Amino acid sequence: MSLIVTGSIGIDTVITPTGRADDILGGSCTYFAAAASFFAPVRIVAAVGDDFPDEHMAVFDHFNVDATGLEVRAGSKTFRWTGEYQQDMNDRDTLDVQQGVLAEPLPAVPKAFRATEYVFLANTHPAGQMELRASFPQAKLVVADTMDLWLNTALDELKALLRQIDGLVLNDSEALMLTGERNMVVAAQKIVDMGPKFVVIKKGEHGCMLLHEDGVAALPAFPASKVVDPTGAGDSFAGGMMGYLAEADRTDLATLKRALAYGTIVASYNIESFSLERLKTLCRTEIDQRLAQFADAVRFDA
Amino acid sequence: MSLIVTGSIGIDTVITPTGRADDILGGSCTYFAAAASFFAPVRIVAAVGDDFPDEHMAVFDHFNVDATGLEVRAGSKTFRWTGEYQQDMNDRDTLDVQQGVLAEPLPAVPKAFRATEYVFLANTHPAGQMELRASFPQAKLVVADTMDLWLNTALDELKALLRQIDGLVLNDSEALMLTGERNMVVAAQKIVDMGPKFVVIKKGEHGCMLLHEDGVAALPAFPASKVVDPTGAGDSFAGGMMGYLAEADRTDLATLKRALAYGTIVASYNIESFSLERLKTLCRTEIDQRLAQFADAVRFDA
Repeated sequence: MSLIVTGSIGIDTVITPTGRADDILGGSCTYFAAAASFFAPVRIVAAVGDDFPDEHMAVFDHFNVDATGLEVRAGSKTFRWTGEYQQDMNDRDTLDVQQGVLAEPLPAVPKAFRATEYVFLANTHPAGQMELRASFPQAKLVVADTMDLWLNTALDELKALLRQIDGLVLNDSEALMLTGERNMVVAAQKIVDMGPKFVVIKKGEHGCMLLHEDGVAALPAFPASKVVDPTGAGDSFAGGMMGYLAEADRTDLATLKRALAYGTIVASYNIESFSLERLKTLCRTEIDQRLAQFADAVRFDA
Repeated sequence: MSLIVTGSIGIDTVITPTGRADDILGGSCTYFAAAASFFAPVRIVAAVGDDFPDEHMAVFDHFNVDATGLEVRAGSKTFRWTGEYQQDMNDRDTLDVQQGVLAEPLPAVPKAFRATEYVFLANTHPAGQMELRASFPQAKLVVADTMDLWLNTALDELKALLRQIDGLVLNDSEALMLTGERNMVVAAQKIVDMGPKFVVIKKGEHGCMLLHEDGVAALPAFPASKVVDPTGAGDSFAGGMMGYLAEADRTDLATLKRALAYGTIVASYNIESFSLERLKTLCRTEIDQRLAQFADAVRFDA
């Protein structure tokens, strides 16, 4: 089935305890699309400025992403983010942000994309997410991401969005902000009570939790010994998850659990390099091999 | 098979965000023994002072623990600990410690206990753990716990201990201290390189990781919605794990993984109350029911 992601494309500068990379391709839409491309045809709706380098544009071709919905705006600047990770890689400081096109009107959804069945609304203002959501009247599954900024500044719109989507993906710290609950099981239930059929709480190196109307799932992160740059881990997780759901064309609990595992695996590859370098050389066979290792690591006989 | 634990018995005062309990039964040996008692006959080697209340002593009878090795020392004081948990329950401050008998010579191992097959050396000075280890010449499996204090003050003795035991259980922060590695997979490998056949890294509410010479396992914590007091979570985890290994009388990787899951489940019950109140009413059927739920929460088809 077709899958679409609406979100940001950025030019990032990333500093980690072991290295630094300047002006690399980033953004939620980018990481999501690359991760999802291993499972299903991916369409994007996003915008960049006329400063966006050809070499970055070529990456979407590499992943066979349909970039018909990628607007290159003359006279505008691409979103730029500079961040630095602390020693433990869980904390990062944003050193600089230049909104560029993200401060401008949303990109348009091409007519040919309106029939897309699987929709991921990556993080942007929830009013914008609602507007985008309305562009996909035939969607079988709509999942959204969010961030602390909107919890602080657009909570009412976010709550309205929650009544219009099937699933929400967010970090544990965001789940705490949204519900006031430190216990993630209780927080997840409160979020499901706000509207969506399921919520996925991402816990970074500690894995993820799913609360679905039919049950619960909990997974650790893949026990990875190589972590070069965590940027895009959450987006590639969501991309692997949604990509698998679109491939399977099912949204039941068992399929969602397998989707969480695929998301975990693609994210574990993504963090092995800066930007999309590792994903560029990744193949589905490697994904399935690591998925089998992961299934073995979490399996026990009850 | 028989199982023994050497460790502390304490009188705790615990303050959590939701309540407070004064002069309750605690200590690593206590939590471990109660948790393990659901699986195998448990022996303890420990010491208390003559201030130790009869009502606390009766708890060992309740769990059918063989307390032949529990010394009640006239003129000595029982170990006491007062601690307060912060809002997120992961951080706690020690408000008061009175070493009491823990500052005195180690308790003696009764002759009848020397043939014990499964041995857990709960946290104490590693020189003392080595001395205790020598008291069990027929042990099939010896596992030890440790703490930051010994990493700072008795590192050489701890490294000597690691060459004499089969398994080590420790927290992620302690694994970082011991190896200098923030990546827990790399840290675990470094610890196994120091001597033991396996290491279990406990991550509190984020679950645990096992690195064994035959493979790796990773489990989230049980998705628990009720957390009253985390005290003893690590000790009851170790107790459930070792208890199951003694029951199964096997130490292969598959059995160890099931043991980790049992430890996770017993710990999830333990934190539902102060002290041992929940474990006192717990039965094996409830443990196995929750184990099945847990297996279902982490299982996906690869």
